[in-house]
Amino acid sequence: MSAELSKQPVVKEVPPKGDDLSAWYTAVCLRAELVSYSPVRGCVVLRPYGFGLWENLQRELDARFKATGHENAYFPLLIPESLLMKEAEHVEGFAPEVAWVTHGGSEKLTERLAIRPTSEVIIGTMYAQWIESHRDLPILINQWCNVVRWEKATRPFLRTMEFLWQEGHTAHATAQQAREETLKILDVYRDFAENVAALPVYAGVKSASERFPGAEETYSIEALMPDGKALQSATSHDLGQNFAKAYDITFADADGTTKHVYTTSWGMSWRMLGAVIMAHGDDRGLRLPPKLAPLEAVIVPIVKASDRRALDVAEQLRAALAERGFRVRVDDRDQTPGWKYAEWEIRGVPVRIEIGPRDVESASVTLVRRDKRKGEEGASRNVPTSGVAEALRETLGAVHENLFAQAKEFLTTHTFAVSEREEFLERCSSRAGMIDVAWCGRPECEAFVKAQTGATTRNLRALEGQARCVACGESARVRAYFAQSY
Amino acid sequence: MSAELSKQPVVKEVPPKGDDLSAWYTAVCLRAELVSYSPVRGCVVLRPYGFGLWENLQRELDARFKATGHENAYFPLLIPESLLMKEAEHVEGFAPEVAWVTHGGSEKLTERLAIRPTSEVIIGTMYAQWIESHRDLPILINQWCNVVRWEKATRPFLRTMEFLWQEGHTAHATAQQAREETLKILDVYRDFAENVAALPVYAGVKSASERFPGAEETYSIEALMPDGKALQSATSHDLGQNFAKAYDITFADADGTTKHVYTTSWGMSWRMLGAVIMAHGDDRGLRLPPKLAPLEAVIVPIVKASDRRALDVAEQLRAALAERGFRVRVDDRDQTPGWKYAEWEIRGVPVRIEIGPRDVESASVTLVRRDKRKGEEGASRNVPTSGVAEALRETLGAVHENLFAQAKEFLTTHTFAVSEREEFLERCSSRAGMIDVAWCGRPECEAFVKAQTGATTRNLRALEGQARCVACGESARVRAYFAQSY
Repeated sequence: MSAELSKQPVVKEVPPKGDDLSAWYTAVCLRAELVSYSPVRGCVVLRPYGFGLWENLQRELDARFKATGHENAYFPLLIPESLLMKEAEHVEGFAPEVAWVTHGGSEKLTERLAIRPTSEVIIGTMYAQWIESHRDLPILINQWCNVVRWEKATRPFLRTMEFLWQEGHTAHATAQQAREETLKILDVYRDFAENVAALPVYAGVKSASERFPGAEETYSIEALMPDGKALQSATSHDLGQNFAKAYDITFADADGTTKHVYTTSWGMSWRMLGAVIMAHGDDRGLRLPPKLAPLEAVIVPIVKASDRRALDVAEQLRAALAERGFRVRVDDRDQTPGWKYAEWEIRGVPVRIEIGPRDVESASVTLVRRDKRKGEEGASRNVPTSGVAEALRETLGAVHENLFAQAKEFLTTHTFAVSEREEFLERCSSRAGMIDVAWCGRPECEAFVKAQTGATTRNLRALEGQARCVACGESARVRAYFAQSY
Repeated sequence: MSAELSKQPVVKEVPPKGDDLSAWYTAVCLRAELVSYSPVRGCVVLRPYGFGLWENLQRELDARFKATGHENAYFPLLIPESLLMKEAEHVEGFAPEVAWVTHGGSEKLTERLAIRPTSEVIIGTMYAQWIESHRDLPILINQWCNVVRWEKATRPFLRTMEFLWQEGHTAHATAQQAREETLKILDVYRDFAENVAALPVYAGVKSASERFPGAEETYSIEALMPDGKALQSATSHDLGQNFAKAYDITFADADGTTKHVYTTSWGMSWRMLGAVIMAHGDDRGLRLPPKLAPLEAVIVPIVKASDRRALDVAEQLRAALAERGFRVRVDDRDQTPGWKYAEWEIRGVPVRIEIGPRDVESASVTLVRRDKRKGEEGASRNVPTSGVAEALRETLGAVHENLFAQAKEFLTTHTFAVSEREEFLERCSSRAGMIDVAWCGRPECEAFVKAQTGATTRNLRALEGQARCVACGESARVRAYFAQSY
């Protein structure tokens, strides 16, 4: 058995979340059957339940890309080494992380091929061929694919050698259009995080040292995890003309002159699912936001040897709900109701629908919310069978709102506007959360803070008024969120 | 510029299909912007219009997999060499086609990693971990992904080093259940080919020499191309216990004994799109079956400087049709209607909706079918604007039926039941089509026919009654379709 497989503990219990977030996280990912470790170092298998999360992420995000005029395409996995070498910063940033193909069958290749760590290079090369005139612009393309970045560590969703993501690549006639695209997508990501993943985020621009290799500006959305570390959940890059110049992407403008295009790229990976798992889960396991949950509801019929009517009612209800587009399943396995409740709680299904013999008599069912504790107000409600679809829709909406409100409350109470140097360094060191400060913007200053505390800027926004940098005392240029990060 | 890119002609015209199918095929794939050659040998880019075909294929096929109880998952791209070596026939079949990763960053790997040519190996390894008892069976998983098989030649969709496909992998408690699964999926593929791709196929079992490496039986669907060559469009493999034994996939049966599972695997790739393009296209370009077409209809408003009302009507109609779920676009570019008609004919959009000034007056539009020639009965019809959605739905159905009927007519008239040896060899050599014969089933006999004529068995079915093998005169065991193939 390989090293990776031997790391795969048989997880029976999920330890309390508060004791050790990292242990809880790994246990819940395995126990809920989201992922398995694989025999390939650094790679995990996304199991059907985990893939269900990814499919919902894809559907929601893809609809938003299409609504903003983007189309999907597919570009090659392998990139010739000479092509990769054309953009200097990009090469420097990615070369240490590249997996190299050197042989095809028994033949040694004359030129090595990189497995794409990202696709600016190959897509830029194609855009150079496709674009002739300003009438060909903008090009707005997205790709859903796998990428490989050589990693030693493995943490499901958060750090894996191969991961699934989407990468958008656009080309524009003007700098302004490219910047507008970059910010439009940043807002798509924010909207997705908040309204699908129920995750409040800070959106802003990255500092120079945190910028994508080859970008003019990188923007990000940043979520806050329960251990006070930030998790960068998506990035959107304004690449200016850097890639256009390296890959010779030009167009004939309306005035007849030949110009380089302006490009952008932007991506969200399955890392977002890691943020969802960590932010929302509790001691009992996952709590999935309804719009991402592979199952919105599970129906548990309570059946006795002498009375199996609940099973029929459950199946009728399932069919009626599926007909209306709900993702729902009946758990008719040969186990006790209590066992099933615990099982689906670990898996984070937002709503459980219980049907007991008395419910059958009264033509009603009980909806139980996963996001609330037993006995908490609104944790469960009895509704007539005829009104389940309506009640379920309402309840799923309420679950989303509650998860978002809880995460928002956490973010708000763990964001600290700090103006004293000592407090700043202490809060950074102790992972207090998002430390909101006036900052000079100098890489040296950021490097100092990182060396002292482990924290870096997560992203930046405009500074209102005048202030001194909290770290170095020089004149501040921006407001920054500092935090340790995943 | 690389060898591949320099092969990329600027295609202005599509040559007649009948003169040189291969030249027509390449030209139409490029001219309709389905694909571009890439700087990576053997790899093409699937452009947005081509990817639209793939998205529709995915949606239709995925719905069928889910309706038959399958779930999606994702397994690693890279497979350690030692794992790949466990199933002898499988290794022998795939080793010559494997791309090998030997370096990660600057580090040389202690064990080479294969880019998956197919995933039986990695999935079997995971199933060995996941399956404990008969209660864990069946496992019914599908994966949509990219695979790499080292190829020198490049033909868009038909032969590329990297391609997109789906691969299903299932595990069962009994041989019978595995066989039933294999045949169930074969029928899903047949249904998809006929009812989505409008492509009639012959479904049957492969001969021993055409079997998937490591399979007990391979089944296929085979379509017939206009040049008389068969195109294998999907395969479904009953793997028996071969992979279960090589990868130690066992379960505790209800009787307490430990047994090896029975597995299946099955796949359809973007090759199916190559079949669709070649089978249905004509001298004017693509003719896309409506269920796969990225655009079901294009609206062309005929606008004069003095009368731009058609543009508003077109936009209103687009919105109304999109609202009803149609994939539709307005072509409002600054070009003549004739130019636009030709453009969308090349791209194979099933229905064109023309709106001229007189149509605006009479509150009607003209629907023009791509599958019919100008002047042919039913090629166009004028309908009131209020009834376009209904008329479009009917017309799209009629286009599908007509494409299917034409392809079926071709298949039927190019299938020859032959019992004379000389006629058999002649028809095989001349690519007459599907040559339907009684056959002995012996690999030596098939090898002889291949050497003599270039044809092999495409697939087999039961022989009714007794007969002699058309090729060797020995006692026949099956009926076989022989043909040259892609």
